[in-house]
Amino acid sequence: MKKFVYSFDEGTATMKDLLGGKGANLAEMNNIGLPVPFGFTITTEACNTYYNKGNKLWDELIDEIAEKLHLLESKTGKIFGDKINPLLVSVRSGAKFSMPGMMDTVLNLGLNDDTVEALSKNTNNDRFAYDSYRRFIQMFGNVVMDIDKEMFDEVLERKKSEEKVKFDNELDVDSLKQIVKEYKEIYKKETNNDFPMNPKEQLLLAVEAVFKSWNTERAIVYRKLHKISDKLGTAVNIQSMVFGNMGDDCATGVAFTRNPATGEKKLFGEFLVNAQGEDVVAGIRTPHNIEKLEEIMPDIYKQFAEYAELLENHYRDMQDIEFTIEKGKLYMLQTRNGKRTIPAAIRIAVEAVEEGRLDEKEALLRVDAYQLDQLLHPTFDKKILKETNSIAKGLPASPGASSGKIYFSAEDAVKASKKGEEVILVRQETSPEDIEGMVKAKGILTSRGGMTSHAAVVARGMGKCCVAGCEALKVNERLKQFIANGKVYNEGDYISINGSTGDVYEGIIPTIEPEFSPQFVTLMEWADKYRQLGVRANADTPKDATKSVELGAEGIGLCRTEHMFFDEKRIPAVREMILADTKEQRKAALEKILPMQKEDFIGIYKAMGARPITIRLLDPPLHEFLPNDEKSLKSLAEEIKIDYEALKIRIEDLKEINPMLGHRGCRLAISYPEIAEMQTRAVIEAAIYVKKVEGIDVKPEIMIPLVSKPEELTFLKDIVVTLADKIIEESGIELNYLYGTMIEVPRACIVADDIAKDAEFFSFGTNDLTQMTYGFSRDDAGKIIEEYLDKKIFDKDPFQVIDREGVGKLMKTAVELGKKQKPDIKLGICGEHGGEPSSVEFCHELGLDYVSCSPFRVPIARLAAAQAAVINGDKVKYSTK
Amino acid sequence: MKKFVYSFDEGTATMKDLLGGKGANLAEMNNIGLPVPFGFTITTEACNTYYNKGNKLWDELIDEIAEKLHLLESKTGKIFGDKINPLLVSVRSGAKFSMPGMMDTVLNLGLNDDTVEALSKNTNNDRFAYDSYRRFIQMFGNVVMDIDKEMFDEVLERKKSEEKVKFDNELDVDSLKQIVKEYKEIYKKETNNDFPMNPKEQLLLAVEAVFKSWNTERAIVYRKLHKISDKLGTAVNIQSMVFGNMGDDCATGVAFTRNPATGEKKLFGEFLVNAQGEDVVAGIRTPHNIEKLEEIMPDIYKQFAEYAELLENHYRDMQDIEFTIEKGKLYMLQTRNGKRTIPAAIRIAVEAVEEGRLDEKEALLRVDAYQLDQLLHPTFDKKILKETNSIAKGLPASPGASSGKIYFSAEDAVKASKKGEEVILVRQETSPEDIEGMVKAKGILTSRGGMTSHAAVVARGMGKCCVAGCEALKVNERLKQFIANGKVYNEGDYISINGSTGDVYEGIIPTIEPEFSPQFVTLMEWADKYRQLGVRANADTPKDATKSVELGAEGIGLCRTEHMFFDEKRIPAVREMILADTKEQRKAALEKILPMQKEDFIGIYKAMGARPITIRLLDPPLHEFLPNDEKSLKSLAEEIKIDYEALKIRIEDLKEINPMLGHRGCRLAISYPEIAEMQTRAVIEAAIYVKKVEGIDVKPEIMIPLVSKPEELTFLKDIVVTLADKIIEESGIELNYLYGTMIEVPRACIVADDIAKDAEFFSFGTNDLTQMTYGFSRDDAGKIIEEYLDKKIFDKDPFQVIDREGVGKLMKTAVELGKKQKPDIKLGICGEHGGEPSSVEFCHELGLDYVSCSPFRVPIARLAAAQAAVINGDKVKYSTK
Repeated sequence: MKKFVYSFDEGTATMKDLLGGKGANLAEMNNIGLPVPFGFTITTEACNTYYNKGNKLWDELIDEIAEKLHLLESKTGKIFGDKINPLLVSVRSGAKFSMPGMMDTVLNLGLNDDTVEALSKNTNNDRFAYDSYRRFIQMFGNVVMDIDKEMFDEVLERKKSEEKVKFDNELDVDSLKQIVKEYKEIYKKETNNDFPMNPKEQLLLAVEAVFKSWNTERAIVYRKLHKISDKLGTAVNIQSMVFGNMGDDCATGVAFTRNPATGEKKLFGEFLVNAQGEDVVAGIRTPHNIEKLEEIMPDIYKQFAEYAELLENHYRDMQDIEFTIEKGKLYMLQTRNGKRTIPAAIRIAVEAVEEGRLDEKEALLRVDAYQLDQLLHPTFDKKILKETNSIAKGLPASPGASSGKIYFSAEDAVKASKKGEEVILVRQETSPEDIEGMVKAKGILTSRGGMTSHAAVVARGMGKCCVAGCEALKVNERLKQFIANGKVYNEGDYISINGSTGDVYEGIIPTIEPEFSPQFVTLMEWADKYRQLGVRANADTPKDATKSVELGAEGIGLCRTEHMFFDEKRIPAVREMILADTKEQRKAALEKILPMQKEDFIGIYKAMGARPITIRLLDPPLHEFLPNDEKSLKSLAEEIKIDYEALKIRIEDLKEINPMLGHRGCRLAISYPEIAEMQTRAVIEAAIYVKKVEGIDVKPEIMIPLVSKPEELTFLKDIVVTLADKIIEESGIELNYLYGTMIEVPRACIVADDIAKDAEFFSFGTNDLTQMTYGFSRDDAGKIIEEYLDKKIFDKDPFQVIDREGVGKLMKTAVELGKKQKPDIKLGICGEHGGEPSSVEFCHELGLDYVSCSPFRVPIARLAAAQAAVINGDKVKYSTK
Repeated sequence: MKKFVYSFDEGTATMKDLLGGKGANLAEMNNIGLPVPFGFTITTEACNTYYNKGNKLWDELIDEIAEKLHLLESKTGKIFGDKINPLLVSVRSGAKFSMPGMMDTVLNLGLNDDTVEALSKNTNNDRFAYDSYRRFIQMFGNVVMDIDKEMFDEVLERKKSEEKVKFDNELDVDSLKQIVKEYKEIYKKETNNDFPMNPKEQLLLAVEAVFKSWNTERAIVYRKLHKISDKLGTAVNIQSMVFGNMGDDCATGVAFTRNPATGEKKLFGEFLVNAQGEDVVAGIRTPHNIEKLEEIMPDIYKQFAEYAELLENHYRDMQDIEFTIEKGKLYMLQTRNGKRTIPAAIRIAVEAVEEGRLDEKEALLRVDAYQLDQLLHPTFDKKILKETNSIAKGLPASPGASSGKIYFSAEDAVKASKKGEEVILVRQETSPEDIEGMVKAKGILTSRGGMTSHAAVVARGMGKCCVAGCEALKVNERLKQFIANGKVYNEGDYISINGSTGDVYEGIIPTIEPEFSPQFVTLMEWADKYRQLGVRANADTPKDATKSVELGAEGIGLCRTEHMFFDEKRIPAVREMILADTKEQRKAALEKILPMQKEDFIGIYKAMGARPITIRLLDPPLHEFLPNDEKSLKSLAEEIKIDYEALKIRIEDLKEINPMLGHRGCRLAISYPEIAEMQTRAVIEAAIYVKKVEGIDVKPEIMIPLVSKPEELTFLKDIVVTLADKIIEESGIELNYLYGTMIEVPRACIVADDIAKDAEFFSFGTNDLTQMTYGFSRDDAGKIIEEYLDKKIFDKDPFQVIDREGVGKLMKTAVELGKKQKPDIKLGICGEHGGEPSSVEFCHELGLDYVSCSPFRVPIARLAAAQAAVINGDKVKYSTK
C-alpha cells in the first residue's frame, strides 16, 4: 500500500516533491538535531489522490494519520483530546513552492471546552489557555471554515475598548472567556454548526481545508503567473504545539540569516515577546528587531545565531527561519531559502564563493537572470512610490522609469524636446514614422499592442522605458488627450511611467540611476568564464553600440539600417528614392543617402572596434517611410515636385493589406537592387575607411532579411558580394566580411540546407518566425495572447519565451540542415528572445554560436548563457533547477 | 570518346533527350521502313558541350560530322560540293520539345555557283536549280546570318512585278539568276563577306547557328513560360534533300492524321504543287486541301494515307506529318504527336480506346487536365475575338467570359443588377463587403491582387469570371471610372472580360455556352474508375452545392459560413453581434442569426444528400463585416442606437495592422464561444431536421479554422462537441458528425500528432499555409510573385502549384504525425490547390483521402486524380510524363 504520511524522522530535505518545502525542511532540521517540535507530514500525493477520489478523504488515509498521531502522542507524552494532558498541534499547508493564497496555519488545534481547562491547569496560566483557545477558534473559523476574519476582529476590538486596553495581551481571562463565547456564536451563525469539540474532527476538517486551498482562485492565478504546475499538489504538516504566548519568557519571531535587501551577512529579523504565530507579521504589536533578543535573552540569541549559521551551511544558502521560545527554550519551526532582492542575491552568491561555501558555477545558478533586469534601468524612488497610486496599468514593455510631459505625436514630441522639455510620447500605437519622436522621448506609452509591438521592440532596442497596450487609457490623438480613471490628461501634463511594472502615475516621481556593485562585476566575470554562447547586442547607432560594449556585448548581432533612414535630414531623400519613377531617379536619390549611411557605419565601426557587426539590409515595407496625413503629404508633394493627387495615388498603391507579409525584406532589394548596392557600398566603403584611418580590423557581416527561397539569397549574392569584392579589390586593403541571412520565415528553416550553400551565417529572427509559425501578428496579438494565457491555451507568451515545440522545432531543423550543408556555418539569434533566459538556454542547447539582444539585456543574456552552460555541463548535479 | 553524331539508322523514337524530337522520329520512321531521306543527327549533348567550350565547335565534332557526311554520300551516291553529282542537304534544329524561336530550317545547303550548274544539268531543269539556289541564299542569309528577310523579299517582289507575274513559280531562269546575283550582293553588304562557296563552311555555319538559336531571347522566354529546362539543349538534323519544286509531279505538304480542332478521324492538311519547304505555311500561294491530293495523285494519296495510319498506330497517337513528293515519289520528312484543342484531345483519346489502340488508363493520360478548364466555362465567340484588340490584360483569375456595364461599388452593382442590367464589377480590389455585389455581377475586374487575392478566390468559388491584378488599369472608385490605354471608361460603359486569358475588351463580345460531349462524359467515368482520391467541392450555397454535384463532386470539402453572413438581410444582426457590449447582447444578436444560418444548412444538406459536408466555423476578422465609409457608419449608428463617435472608436479598435495574422479563425470562437455555439446549433439542428423530414442521412463535419496549438482544438471541443451531442441526444435521432480542423498554420503541421488527438479529420488550407510558410500575403503578393517569376526566383507561383519543397514538406510532416497518432484520420485539402493538377498529384502521393476545389474545377481534379493514380500505379511505364 502506498504510504501517504511521513513522520519527521522519515523525511529529508530532498523530498520536497512529496513532502512539500516546509515538510521536507522540518524533517531535515529534525534529523540534523535541531530542536523541532515533532510531527508528521501528509504527502502531496495524498492531496492529488483526494482530488482523484472526488474531493473526499478516505479511510486508509484517516487510519494512517491516526497512526502517526499516536506516534506523536508517545513522543510528547501527551494525548490528543485528553482532558488531563492534551496534545495540541499546528496544521500548515506546504507545497513544493511556497505560494500565497494557500491555506496558511491553524494553531492550537485540539483545544475544546475540556482541553482548554486542562491546558490552564497544566500551565497554571488560565489567561494563556483562553488566549490560545480564542486564537484557535478564530483561525479555525477563518481559515478552515472561511468565516470573515473581520467578524472575529470586531469582537476583539470591542472588548479591548470596553476594557480600555490597547493590546490583546492586556486582556484578562474573563474577557478572553467572553470572547471565546462570542466567537463560538459567530461560528454557529456562520456555519449552522456548533464549533466542533472533537479534536479528530477538527484535525480532519483542517487537513481537508488545506487540500482544498490548493485550488482556490488566488492559488491558481499565482501558479499560472509563476508557471507552477497544477499537478504538484500540497502537503499538510501536523506538528505538536510549542507556545510563544505563555508569558514574558516566551517569544516568537522570524529571521533571515543575511539581509534580504542588501545581502549583508548579519542576522536580520523581528520577534515579539509573549506572542504566537502570525502576530509578528500581522502587526498587532510592533515587533522588536532581532538584535534586541541578544539584549533580553542573550543565551537564546547565541543559540539561535549558531543554529542560523548551521542551517546556512547545511543548506548552502541564505535561510528564512521561524522560531518560537517557550519558557526559555528555543524551537525551530521552519526554515527555507530566503527570498531576496536581486542586489542581495548577487552579493550573497558572490560572498558565498569567497566564504568557500559555493563554487563559481553554483553561485551563477543562485541569481535569477530574469530579475537582473531590475538592476539595469533607472527606478522610481520606492519611498515615494509607496504613497502614490497608479492611474492605469499596461504591459511592462521595456524596463526603466521616467517622468515627463505628455505629447501625442512624434512631431510635437520632437518640438517639445528641442525646447528642453522631458517628454513622454503617448500614442495609440507607434509606427516607424514615430521613431524620431521615440528617440527624443524619455518614455513611451501606448494604449494598444503587446510585448512585442512596435513600441515595445523599438523601446527595448533603445533601452528606453515603455508601457505598452495600456488599454485602460482612452487615447485621442486628435484632441491630444487621454482619459484614465475618468480623468482627462491633456498635452503638457506630467505623468510618470514604470516600464518594469507597467504602472502609469500622475505627476513626476523622482528616479534613481542604476549602479553596479563590485559583486555584480565579479558575477559577470564568472558568467563570461563559463558561458559557451557569445553575446551580442542589437544596436543601430554609435551611442547604442558604445552602451552595448559597456554592458559586455562581444559584437552587434543586428544593426537595423532602416532606423537610420528616419532621421529628419535623410527622410526627404529616402522619400524621393521611394517615389522615384525610374531607376535613374532612384539612383540619384540613393546617391544622396549613401554618404549619410556611410557616416553611420563609420561611427558604429569605431564604437565596436574589431568586434563583428551584423548589418541587415533595408527591411520594412517602403510605405512606412511615407507620411499619411494630408498636411505632410501636401508639403511632400511640393518638395519633390509631384502633383498632390498623383502622389496620393502613388502612396495608395504602395499600401498593403498585410504589410508584415508584403513587399519587404529581401523582396525590396530584389525589386530595387540599387538599394542593396548603395547599402553594400556604404558598409564596405565605411569599413575600408575605418581600417585605413583608424587601423581597426572591422568585421562587417552583411545580412539579408526575410529569405524564404535559396534563390533569393543567390540572386542578391550576385549583386552584393560582387560589388563588395570589387570595392575591396579596388581599395587595395584586405577586408574580411561575411554574407549571410536571417532565418525568420518558416520555409527558410525547411530548406536551410539549400540556403546554407550561399550563406556564411544564419541569424534566427525569432520575432517574425514566431509570427509566421503561429500566424500571429505581433502588432495585433496583444489581446489574443492575454486571452490565451487566461484560458490556459498558452502557458507562456511565445513572443517572450521561445516556443520550443513549434518554433523551436523549426529552428532545430534549420540548425541541423544548415550544419549538414556547411559544418562551420555561424549561427546566431537576433530576435527579442535573445535576451530572455529560458530562450537563451534553448539556444545553448541548439548549439548556436551567439545570442543577440537589446543592449540593456546583454548582462541578462551573459548570465543566462552561463547558467545554461553550467546546467547542461552537469545535468545530474543541477537537475533541481 | 563520346559519340556526338548519330545516323538515322542508329537512333530510335525513345532517344528524344539525345536526338531531339525531330531527330528521334526521323530515325524511327527510317527504321520502320518509311521513305525518309537519309541523314544524321548531331546530339543535344553536342549543343551543351558547344556552350561549355565557350561557344566554339571543336575538332572532334567536326571530324565526326565529316564521317557521317561521308556515310551519307555513299548512301546517296552523291558527293557534298561535287561539281558533277553534288549532295544537297537540309539543316534543321530539333530540341526535345518543339519550340518557337529556335532556328527552323535551311534547305538546299551545299549549293554554290558550281553545284547549281551540276544540279541544273543532272535534273535537266535550270529553272529548278536556280529556284533552289535563290531559296538557299535567302534562307541561309536570313536564318544563319540573321539578315532581314524583307530585304530578300523586296528583290523577289520587284522582279515579279518587272516580269509581270503573280507567283514565284512563274519566274523564268534568267530572272532567278538575276535574283541570285542580287541576293549575293545583299549578303555581302550585310555580312561584309562573300556568300560562302564552300559547302563544308556552309554546313558548319548552319550547325553553329542552330546551337546559338537555343539561347535567343524568344527561345528563353518560351522555355520559361512552358517550364522547359534551359539545360536540355537542341539537336541538329542534317538530311539529304528531296525536292518538291522540280515540277508539277512534285509537291510538299503537312497533314494531321485526325482533325486537331474536333478530333474527327479523317486526314486533315494542306499541300502545294511544285513548292518547297515553308511555302505551304508561308502562304505564298494558297495551298490545296489534302483531299485534293487524292484527286490529282491518287496513288500517292493512298500511299500517304497508309503511312499516316501506320504512324498513328506506331506512335499510338494522332500525328502531325510533313511530306514531300519528288517526281512522283513520296518522302516523309517529319512526324510528331499533333497539337490539338481540348475537345479534340478528349475525342481522340476516347476513340483510341474504342479502336483498341489505347487502354483506358493511357487515354486518361492523353488529356491535359490543365486545358480542361477551357471546356467548363462560357467562352467568347472566337471569330469576333479575332477582330478585337484587348484594352488591357490582367491575371486570368477565374475562367469564363462575360460582358456587362461597369460599376465601381458593390452597392451600385447590386442596384444596377436589380434593374436587370448585366454588371461587371470593377474595383481596385475586393473585400468581403463586396460579396453581395460580386454575387450579382457577371464578372469581376480588379486592378490589384494576385491569383489568390480575395476577388480571385471568391470568383473561382462562385465559378464566376474574374480578371484580377490588371495593373494597366487606373481605377478611380470615387470618380467611378477607369483609364485604360489612355481612354477613360465611365460607369455604365460596356466592357467584356476573359477570365481564362486575362484580357479586357471594350464593348460587348458574344459568348458561347459550354456543352459536354459524350466523349467528355466517358472520359470522366474512366477518371472516376481509376482515381483513388475523393473529389469534393468548395461550396457555400445550395446553388453552388447543386452545381458541384452536377460536376461530379462527392461532397463539400469547404463550406464557408461567413459568406452567408454578408446577405443584406443578415448583416444588421451580424453587426449588432460584433458591436455588442456584453455577452448577453451578443447572444441576443446571435439568436437572430441562428434561424437564417440553419436555413442555409438545410438548403445545402438537401442539395448534397448523404454526401459529407465540411462546414468551417466563422473565419474572417470581424471588422470585415463592418462598413468603413462615413455614410454607412452613420446609418449603422442609428440602426443599432450607438453614438456615432463611440461607434467609430469601436470600429477603430477592431482594425488590425495585419488582419491575416490577427483575430480570426478559431481565435474568434475562443473569444466568443457563443458564436461557435450558435453555429454548432445551426449545423446540428439543420441536420436533424433534414434527417427527420427528408430521411437524408446528412453527414456534417465541423471544421475549426486556423488552429496552431492543440489546446485551441481541445478548448473548442468542450464547447462544440458537448453542445452537438446534447442536441442530438435530445432529438432522439441518430446523427453522425465529425469534429476536425484545418491545417493551415505552419505550427499545426509541426505538432500535428498532438492536434490529431482531438481531430477526426485534417483539411489542409494550403492558401494560408503557403502564405505563412513563405511570409507572403496573397493580397499583396501579386506584383512580387510576378517579379520573382521574371527573375527566376520562382519557377512557378506557389499559390497556384503547391510548393513541394517547402509547404509540401510541412504537409508531409503533418500527414505522418497525424497518422502516427490516429491511423484512420481523414485527410483532405480545401485550399485553391485542390483543383490544380500537379498539386492534386502531390496530394495523391501524400496519401490524402480527398481534394476539394471550386465547383468548376471538379472535373479537372477528377481527371488529375485519375492521372496521378495511373502514373503512380506504374511508374516505370508512365515515366515519360
